[in-house]
Amino acid sequence: MLTPALVEAALQRHPGVIDRIRMTFNSDQQRTDNFLRDADVLMIAGPVPLQGLASRAPKLKWLQLSSAGVDNALAHVPNGMILTNARGVHAQRMHEIAMMALLMMNNHMAFFFHNQTKRVWAQQLSDPIEGKTAVILGLGGLGGAAARAAKQLGLNTIGLSRTAAPRDSVDEVHNMDRLRECLKRADFVIVALPLTEQTRNCIDAEALDCLPTHAQILNIGRAQLMDYEHLVKKLEAGELAGAILDVFEQEPLPANSPLWEVPNLIVTPHCWLDRPADYAKLAVEAFVEDLDNFLADRPLLRRVDLQLGY
Amino acid sequence: MLTPALVEAALQRHPGVIDRIRMTFNSDQQRTDNFLRDADVLMIAGPVPLQGLASRAPKLKWLQLSSAGVDNALAHVPNGMILTNARGVHAQRMHEIAMMALLMMNNHMAFFFHNQTKRVWAQQLSDPIEGKTAVILGLGGLGGAAARAAKQLGLNTIGLSRTAAPRDSVDEVHNMDRLRECLKRADFVIVALPLTEQTRNCIDAEALDCLPTHAQILNIGRAQLMDYEHLVKKLEAGELAGAILDVFEQEPLPANSPLWEVPNLIVTPHCWLDRPADYAKLAVEAFVEDLDNFLADRPLLRRVDLQLGY
Repeated sequence: MLTPALVEAALQRHPGVIDRIRMTFNSDQQRTDNFLRDADVLMIAGPVPLQGLASRAPKLKWLQLSSAGVDNALAHVPNGMILTNARGVHAQRMHEIAMMALLMMNNHMAFFFHNQTKRVWAQQLSDPIEGKTAVILGLGGLGGAAARAAKQLGLNTIGLSRTAAPRDSVDEVHNMDRLRECLKRADFVIVALPLTEQTRNCIDAEALDCLPTHAQILNIGRAQLMDYEHLVKKLEAGELAGAILDVFEQEPLPANSPLWEVPNLIVTPHCWLDRPADYAKLAVEAFVEDLDNFLADRPLLRRVDLQLGY
Repeated sequence: MLTPALVEAALQRHPGVIDRIRMTFNSDQQRTDNFLRDADVLMIAGPVPLQGLASRAPKLKWLQLSSAGVDNALAHVPNGMILTNARGVHAQRMHEIAMMALLMMNNHMAFFFHNQTKRVWAQQLSDPIEGKTAVILGLGGLGGAAARAAKQLGLNTIGLSRTAAPRDSVDEVHNMDRLRECLKRADFVIVALPLTEQTRNCIDAEALDCLPTHAQILNIGRAQLMDYEHLVKKLEAGELAGAILDVFEQEPLPANSPLWEVPNLIVTPHCWLDRPADYAKLAVEAFVEDLDNFLADRPLLRRVDLQLGY
């Protein structure tokens, strides 16, 4: 929850900002449009409907999201409007989740979990994770944190990004054209890409078929990045050792989805990167930092490129 | 598998040893007693029956196990015989497993697993693990590795051991008399004790009742250390957030055991500390290192105290 107290606390660290703004808070969906009419800047948290944003908020210059993903908002943001996300706020949690997922994949948790549901005791040994290879798709805030986690565990790290720019903790960086040859070398894959027109379905059936049969994959980006239907076929055929999916085309995942029972597939409910004690605080601090930049005509730190879509 | 090649490789690093011993290898249970008759030193791997060891191996001075746990062998080792285990060989794997288990507990994996079996999507947020408290029971090779893992994740570590001797990576060390007050402060508990007459059932119902309801527990020691029946009641009543059990009174855990379906309980098949690529190599190296000590009348590094039972 965004609260006036959180914003006031953040404003203490940016003197002068408070004298140049008028702030209103609204948690009542019915009354949203009254507030939008005069807003220059809007920060939203949670699933606020953005249909018709440009006409409902004719003066709006800047929309701040409290999430890292922007794909759901993008269609409603006209050219020329500034869009910012909460990039970086999730880094510590992502580091933790990536480390956990890599260790779970190395230690056959998906296999043991599915055996437990069948009351089957089947041992499967693991060598130490050190020296194995993680392929990380996307090297933004999330992928960068995943690479640091992998490196801390002693893994070799192969990163894929649009620009292939060198990154700390990534031994080799390639652009997405080389995805398939990189997947052939993977023990573990972490998908942390934004969903854009370029990345949609980039992990298609042919890409999945490049993975070694002992490989496992974590998707913490978006469902639409990957061909889940083919993934399921491969898991059912034993052509892939396991997967952890945190994101789904429809969320909550419906009770009748076949995904719940796919062998060696772990389903998690897309909430790992939030942090109850201080997520709102961190998101507000990031916003106020950029508010200071905005008022001073400096570039914003978390601005989304509307063409690239992240 | 212990092989002549592994022993020969290890002997290369201890010159002189090979000239003072006569080695025989046996993988045939039927023929074991022929070999035992003249043996001074015996190394075993896997579940070799030890009933009547003293009379079957009348000259035996030293028994080397390839495991860390000695509780199954102890009754067959007469006073005066040297017993050694493979302590230390599991440290790297234990570090990895402890780190995984701590992260799984912090990130509600047991809850998510059990929701998956019920096709239930239920979000539950986690704050970063840093700054939370792990209580580690046993500070031998396994507990020491667990403490290092916990410290690397930024946890506060409270360790319990017989001697309460200070240890690296353990912020506070107490003896087992203070178990209950320590459990009251636990976010996560790792049980890595040897099973002895002193430790048997030390985590009884009253000790379990000291845990906060949000706490979770990993048992990678022995089932007989803990009152599983009471643990199950607490999990079913929602009085404890989760547990990971790797050890059971009967292994393999029978298909009709009620443990398979207890809410927020993860069952794993007691194989995490082995390492297929090089466990035998490491165990043989440890043995040959002590064989050199034995022949030179130096103290053995991995000798078990038959009175203490570890």
